[in-house]
Amino acid sequence: MEFLQALQAALGETSVLTAPADRAPYEQDWRGLVNNPALAVILPASTQQVSEAVKLCAAHNVRIVPQGGNTGLVAGAVPIAAPNQIILSFSRLRATRALDLVADTVTVEAGMTLAALQQAAAEAGRFFPVSLAAEGTAEIGGVISTNAGGLQVLSYGSMRAQVLGLEVVLADGSIWHGLSELRKDNTGYDLKQLFIGAEGTLGLITAATLRLYPRAASRASALVGIENLTQGLGVFTALRAAAGTALTLCEFCTHAALALGTAHTQGGRLPFEAPAYLLLEVSALEGAGDPREMLEATLMAALEEGRVLDAAIAQSERERLVFLALRENISEGELREGGALKHDIAVPLGRLAEMVQAVEALVAEIYPGLRPNIFGHVGDGNLHVNIRPPAGQTVADIAAVKDSLTADVESLAVSMQGSFSAEHGIGQLRLSGMAAHKSHIELSLMRAVKHALDPEGRFNPGKTIPEA
Amino acid sequence: MEFLQALQAALGETSVLTAPADRAPYEQDWRGLVNNPALAVILPASTQQVSEAVKLCAAHNVRIVPQGGNTGLVAGAVPIAAPNQIILSFSRLRATRALDLVADTVTVEAGMTLAALQQAAAEAGRFFPVSLAAEGTAEIGGVISTNAGGLQVLSYGSMRAQVLGLEVVLADGSIWHGLSELRKDNTGYDLKQLFIGAEGTLGLITAATLRLYPRAASRASALVGIENLTQGLGVFTALRAAAGTALTLCEFCTHAALALGTAHTQGGRLPFEAPAYLLLEVSALEGAGDPREMLEATLMAALEEGRVLDAAIAQSERERLVFLALRENISEGELREGGALKHDIAVPLGRLAEMVQAVEALVAEIYPGLRPNIFGHVGDGNLHVNIRPPAGQTVADIAAVKDSLTADVESLAVSMQGSFSAEHGIGQLRLSGMAAHKSHIELSLMRAVKHALDPEGRFNPGKTIPEA
Repeated sequence: MEFLQALQAALGETSVLTAPADRAPYEQDWRGLVNNPALAVILPASTQQVSEAVKLCAAHNVRIVPQGGNTGLVAGAVPIAAPNQIILSFSRLRATRALDLVADTVTVEAGMTLAALQQAAAEAGRFFPVSLAAEGTAEIGGVISTNAGGLQVLSYGSMRAQVLGLEVVLADGSIWHGLSELRKDNTGYDLKQLFIGAEGTLGLITAATLRLYPRAASRASALVGIENLTQGLGVFTALRAAAGTALTLCEFCTHAALALGTAHTQGGRLPFEAPAYLLLEVSALEGAGDPREMLEATLMAALEEGRVLDAAIAQSERERLVFLALRENISEGELREGGALKHDIAVPLGRLAEMVQAVEALVAEIYPGLRPNIFGHVGDGNLHVNIRPPAGQTVADIAAVKDSLTADVESLAVSMQGSFSAEHGIGQLRLSGMAAHKSHIELSLMRAVKHALDPEGRFNPGKTIPEA
Repeated sequence: MEFLQALQAALGETSVLTAPADRAPYEQDWRGLVNNPALAVILPASTQQVSEAVKLCAAHNVRIVPQGGNTGLVAGAVPIAAPNQIILSFSRLRATRALDLVADTVTVEAGMTLAALQQAAAEAGRFFPVSLAAEGTAEIGGVISTNAGGLQVLSYGSMRAQVLGLEVVLADGSIWHGLSELRKDNTGYDLKQLFIGAEGTLGLITAATLRLYPRAASRASALVGIENLTQGLGVFTALRAAAGTALTLCEFCTHAALALGTAHTQGGRLPFEAPAYLLLEVSALEGAGDPREMLEATLMAALEEGRVLDAAIAQSERERLVFLALRENISEGELREGGALKHDIAVPLGRLAEMVQAVEALVAEIYPGLRPNIFGHVGDGNLHVNIRPPAGQTVADIAAVKDSLTADVESLAVSMQGSFSAEHGIGQLRLSGMAAHKSHIELSLMRAVKHALDPEGRFNPGKTIPEA
């Protein structure tokens, strides 16, 4: 094929994978739900090569599926079932371009993994706060394109809040040189905002300048037993008033969810039984007070006033990491014990408790036997509402109810002024939610922006915005 | 005129000002630099009335200049010299629609003043962090549309960081209901980002949901004498590492600038002489340590190691407010003593000292006799590079050098990877900078977005983006 030969001439033969076996790992999404072929997988080694590849695709009417670490949960980085697509992997673009410890910024290429960025920050005596389960594989370009969240959004914000500048290859192959260390720049429209969270549908992010933060000198963690999320929110608001951004973690788990994590954590055990739990963490910089004192004072007051059931403060760094592991291993436990139908919703904080109750009532009434597994980021109003099959079954056994259950859970969240995709995005798998819950005006605005930046639909076809 | 009669029928007669004397205060910008007539000034009292007015303007081919408190510094809220424009004032849209103290959010209409919002937050036991000199008059819609900054960006971010949701009237008169309390919502493009900082050129913001924060329980301030900004940055980086977001203020002033503020502050005096100064403030919530201890420890170490010249820590709340007044009164002193040619630049933090030196060298060499008056927000890399006329003269006496001086200062900032408008925006007055310093690609992207959202150029003509 003339097109593939032209790509090979531009990028080098080893940068254009065409054999099915070579393409296979790129063509299937991480969850194994979507698998569609591409003409080729290309691995450009520079922004210039990305630009050349886009121009060649434009000349040959081929569409481009950008792919980072391919760890997304909504099949946003793999092809749809359609001809004339290539996958463009950023994995060879992984240089650190600049590190500025006065401005506290770092400029990295899109293919650097999130873990490598965290490591580079730590080696420079700084901290990069976006942290998520897939960080060893997820790449910066994908983390920006999905506006990823994770555990520490409460204190530091999502990925959008970390981005100061971008370098982007546009649909005509031109390069926007928008890298910048500036914290303030009001010169016209803030173009970088267009590309953050756009799932690669408006441009290809090749590099980014990101904020760094001071490293915490100490942390204190506690596991708190609560009757329900209404109690939990009381603890959250009290701690937020006392600690502000020093409250770096406030996670909720039902007993069922935390028990699942505990069962899959070596040496893990629940320090006490309760209907539900909060996992709290307060961090402090070198010059600040003792975070454990603050945490103890707040929890002691809550215990005395009967606002929580019980509390255990981690007595060592090892115990702190165990508490964290109980929470982090919930997803792993879920996977090993049959999987779950996953939902990632947000509602206003004041309606979180109502949402949990409503999900439990929904399942009990319409889907009896299924097991809600609810946990998530309380401070962000973001819950992972996962629904497990009956004991002994797998998620495949409940495939028949998937669409209606998902529609029901999403509608519940939206009916409470919430979101049906808080941090995972849309990709291919949540397009039905977009069609069901976004207004005509919102979809029209999104289509207008898409048409303005990518009039020929070159980038990531069939993602983010449903067909009109 | 049929158009004006239709407006009066839709909004009521008292909401359509057509007499020149009634229009006059709306037609001239705050600095008195631009004054152009409009067909009328309209004062809609609801989002629905804004929508009806936009539809009438579309039907009669009239363009709309949105105006908040009219305190902007770049003539972005007053007409250009062109026919068929009306001014749409938001001043009658000033209700608080919702206050949620669990989610810590408030929803207000666009015409509420920034000071009224701060007051409402304080009455609810919360804090709204955006603060600027014009806050008694500046309105929320304008503060969002200009992505205003001010004194506390260092810790809390600009206005963009405070916005969770927007209600916007679009160019066809339809209403986008985008108010939301959610901290996380990755369902398609983040449409609100389009309107923040767009200076009213893409849509008319009628209401917003904004973040609130816990109130600080105590604050400590210090005035620090430094040789130059290189020393100043050393103090800044040490304090940032110790205090993080608890460092709520880090302002730089040359001796000349602070002396000007001191001369215009009742009871004001400089506690000691130094070539330049930093004004620092560390804040702490209820549960945190003593901010004065942290500030003292950091400054004591800096003094002992010779990294600063002198330091005075405010010994009382009264003294803290005096320190703040010295800084805040610089602009007032400047105005009373002949005015200045104003510039609002940002550069990467590591180049701030170089920028100050370069401006001083530029003026000494090319504009001898003029007096640089440099002060600003160190932590943001943002300096107000104002240039005063020789003693005894006014800014009118140096009008002849205005364009070349401004071009020189802006070019200096851009040559250091900086911005020629850090927080004041573009409006009408900085369009030359856009034409000179923005790339063809950037201007093309901005024009494409403008065309996508406002194809007929209905909103705020002649602002933000220079003519192609």
